[in-house]
Amino acid sequence: MTEPAVPVPGAGGLVRLRLDLGYDGTDFSGWARQPGRRSVQEVVEDSLMTVLRVPESRVTCAGRTDAGVHARSQVAHVDAPVTAVERAGGPGALARRLSGVLPRDVRVTEVTPAPDGFDARFAALWRRYAYRVGDHPAGVDPLRRHDVVDHRRKLDVAAMDEAARALLGVHDFSAFCRPREGATTVRTLLQHGWSRVDGLVVATIVADAFCHNMVRALVGAALAVGEGRRPAAWPAEVLAGRVRRPDVQVAPPHGLTLEEVRYPPDEELAARAQAARRRREEPT
Amino acid sequence: MTEPAVPVPGAGGLVRLRLDLGYDGTDFSGWARQPGRRSVQEVVEDSLMTVLRVPESRVTCAGRTDAGVHARSQVAHVDAPVTAVERAGGPGALARRLSGVLPRDVRVTEVTPAPDGFDARFAALWRRYAYRVGDHPAGVDPLRRHDVVDHRRKLDVAAMDEAARALLGVHDFSAFCRPREGATTVRTLLQHGWSRVDGLVVATIVADAFCHNMVRALVGAALAVGEGRRPAAWPAEVLAGRVRRPDVQVAPPHGLTLEEVRYPPDEELAARAQAARRRREEPT
Repeated sequence: MTEPAVPVPGAGGLVRLRLDLGYDGTDFSGWARQPGRRSVQEVVEDSLMTVLRVPESRVTCAGRTDAGVHARSQVAHVDAPVTAVERAGGPGALARRLSGVLPRDVRVTEVTPAPDGFDARFAALWRRYAYRVGDHPAGVDPLRRHDVVDHRRKLDVAAMDEAARALLGVHDFSAFCRPREGATTVRTLLQHGWSRVDGLVVATIVADAFCHNMVRALVGAALAVGEGRRPAAWPAEVLAGRVRRPDVQVAPPHGLTLEEVRYPPDEELAARAQAARRRREEPT
Repeated sequence: MTEPAVPVPGAGGLVRLRLDLGYDGTDFSGWARQPGRRSVQEVVEDSLMTVLRVPESRVTCAGRTDAGVHARSQVAHVDAPVTAVERAGGPGALARRLSGVLPRDVRVTEVTPAPDGFDARFAALWRRYAYRVGDHPAGVDPLRRHDVVDHRRKLDVAAMDEAARALLGVHDFSAFCRPREGATTVRTLLQHGWSRVDGLVVATIVADAFCHNMVRALVGAALAVGEGRRPAAWPAEVLAGRVRRPDVQVAPPHGLTLEEVRYPPDEELAARAQAARRRREEPT
């Protein structure tokens, strides 16, 4: 354990557990705990306190999703007292108990002992998001209306894809970020493209990390291109300007889903986490 | 027009329109109108009355789905006054107007003039349903919980598939039907199999028509096989017995989705409808 976090009173050692989870963001105010609002973090932490029978629990995730954003494969970690984990029957039994306690809009698919140096947030190599839009004039398939944005006007997907690809690589994404004091906005965009999948218009967006609002601002710029309001070269021009602009709209949250988080091989985890901590103060 | 149905007072001729539609069945008491309950039929008929500005509208569908059952490609027809359809701007404009009026859990993707002899219910060659089950111990992907049944115990999909295939062909399905006075229970099962698709356990079920509860009773029998409670030969034995049995459970409705309805070429529509009317009194 490189970082024995939250010490639990009366407990012996702590063990870091990795949680793999997914959620329907519709009825959440986002990942992060907020007083008086229902958050994924709160629901997961409360469930852990119940099944571990501990007075507190603090979960750290790879991608702190906003209100209304979904996750199919979010990754998180928690430092739990060894005695409590053993009492619950070990990580596998803990996962089964959690699934009996969690509401139906969250599921923890796996609980495993985290390898040395693992940190859900800082050790991640990259995060993959998907953004889904329906451009059928009659609206979105009613069974997908919770995770697909209803656009109704035909989109030029080839132009959107061209615009997206032009942003690949290492850039200062301040034009697409909500500014935060002292936090870097340099990110590496590893994949960024649009295609039609099963009748939907879908973006795949992979980066080492994202600053706040970045994915949805990139999608907003792509939609302006897809509707023909802007040329395909426009998002790259916005990027080069390095200033937040009111004409880049932030797309609605419910089209966005965190699909995957990737970590390096176990022996590189600690070095990766250290490097990421150094490089950025506020990765999400 | 072979069957100028519901005459509308004050209108001239009637034109039969084909409607292609889909819905999330969660908040409906099913397709069929029922006093005091929200039904798909009512919502569609009310929307048609609004956009056509007519005092009544009667819609007939291919598959009268039960409460909680979904449809991705339901087909229906309505006989509407020619003058009202023209006033609304023709079938294409009608579809656009409908999409502005319908709630988000129903969408009409297309409105087209029906070819001569078309009858959404009686002219159909076959209906295709899918039934989706999640057998992950942690539960169903939260984003799919509305159309996937949460089973949690591992299913033996190969055994379910074997059991299902044994029922293919023309049979008296009375063992899997809720009995109705005078209605035939002979049906032709054209496809019937189970497979894993994207981590889900999915049945594909195609028949000329289905009697009441038939799909969900077939699924219930398959689940007994998949859990190992019954051998793969059991559903065929039940079928041969030709009596409804309490040990064949009717699976929950929300796993079921009407995926497709197929019609013969236009020149065979009238003959098909006539033959179907003769053969069965209560196809659904």
